[in-house]
Amino acid sequence: MTTGVRRRMGVEERRQQLIGVALELFARRSPDEVSIDEIAATAGISRPLVYHYFPGKLSLYEAALQRAAQDLKSRFAEPHEGPLGARLLRVMGRFFDFVDAHGPGFSALMRGGPAVSAGAADTISHVSATNALIDSVRQAAYEQILSHLGVCDPPARLELVVRSWISLAESTALLWLDGRRIPREELEVQLVQDFAALAAVSAAHDPRLRELLRPVLGDEPADGPFGTLAAGLIALAS
Amino acid sequence: MTTGVRRRMGVEERRQQLIGVALELFARRSPDEVSIDEIAATAGISRPLVYHYFPGKLSLYEAALQRAAQDLKSRFAEPHEGPLGARLLRVMGRFFDFVDAHGPGFSALMRGGPAVSAGAADTISHVSATNALIDSVRQAAYEQILSHLGVCDPPARLELVVRSWISLAESTALLWLDGRRIPREELEVQLVQDFAALAAVSAAHDPRLRELLRPVLGDEPADGPFGTLAAGLIALAS
Repeated sequence: MTTGVRRRMGVEERRQQLIGVALELFARRSPDEVSIDEIAATAGISRPLVYHYFPGKLSLYEAALQRAAQDLKSRFAEPHEGPLGARLLRVMGRFFDFVDAHGPGFSALMRGGPAVSAGAADTISHVSATNALIDSVRQAAYEQILSHLGVCDPPARLELVVRSWISLAESTALLWLDGRRIPREELEVQLVQDFAALAAVSAAHDPRLRELLRPVLGDEPADGPFGTLAAGLIALAS
Repeated sequence: MTTGVRRRMGVEERRQQLIGVALELFARRSPDEVSIDEIAATAGISRPLVYHYFPGKLSLYEAALQRAAQDLKSRFAEPHEGPLGARLLRVMGRFFDFVDAHGPGFSALMRGGPAVSAGAADTISHVSATNALIDSVRQAAYEQILSHLGVCDPPARLELVVRSWISLAESTALLWLDGRRIPREELEVQLVQDFAALAAVSAAHDPRLRELLRPVLGDEPADGPFGTLAAGLIALAS
């Protein structure tokens, strides 16, 4: 019976629609270049109506950020089955899917400028909220990796390896977005191999880390990312 | 003839003194916890006089940041002599000296929150200015490393290795500051070894990178950071 009649959306449905529209626009241009007018036009509603659902661009931006963060976290989930290198490689594939889909929004966010102008106090609380959200995604990644390594109470050196590798993955993705001069599939494999390389460097300094990592990395297949790294390094040394 | 009389400082001298006082205070507590009153008291002058030299905390903070950035850049300079691993290790020593000396200020800056409250437009231009300054330090580090590698026009994969390693050094320093649970000397060596490890991972994918790196890394001594990494990895694999 709704034929020809624009169906009225519920509040939550409309909010979700606007968040989706904002994320689509932020995927093509930096959030500070996207106006509320443009979001309203794309959603097919008036500018005042957007403000009815979100008191300002800042609150719409934060809601969009929250959905994107939730989306990214969900991509870290990976069954605890099979070789570790292959698991990490699948997660890297989903991570680069996300980075690829959110390009300019991801860059603007991670480069740390406030995305939108607001009152000073709002801007500062926005920056804090944004940093807290980014940290919560990093923490989710960290906990996932520890769970796959089967470690609950990591020694300081393992915590450092995992957290610093996560930041390496972020910066690699940002550098990739700037021109996309290297095939992303290659970077996905490289990041998995970087993890093994950084862990090996740290393990060479710490017997306890060696004990922790040996059983985990011991059953890697020769044609997986860890195995091919070993072969590549041997070829390089010769 | 100045005995007993407080010598009056020139404008530039007084500005430099205030910058020095600010940096000392930021080295002990986060800049947003340091007030202009405290800076004035430490410098032995009145609060209005501070505002005479710096129109607001933001401009004093930015001047302090500029001096710190200049200081850090100067630590990257290293003679083009001797094995590359040893050169990079000396730079890492000076980098950790800097991080050690500026702890809370460095953390607050790199964690990206605006350090001080101001008008919205000021806050945003401050964040941009701060990001530009951080990027200029990263760029200086990047150019130094390329010059030591003897490369003018780096292929995309080498640029990625160098830039992503610089971000790894930043995040490692930040993680170290959070509790200092690992001796910094160990991290200085590890970062040098991480550079070799990341370069090796990338070179295993790219013959051109192998050609570039082989002569540079070829004359490394067995007891240098690159040599001990190789030995450590062989021990790990066995």
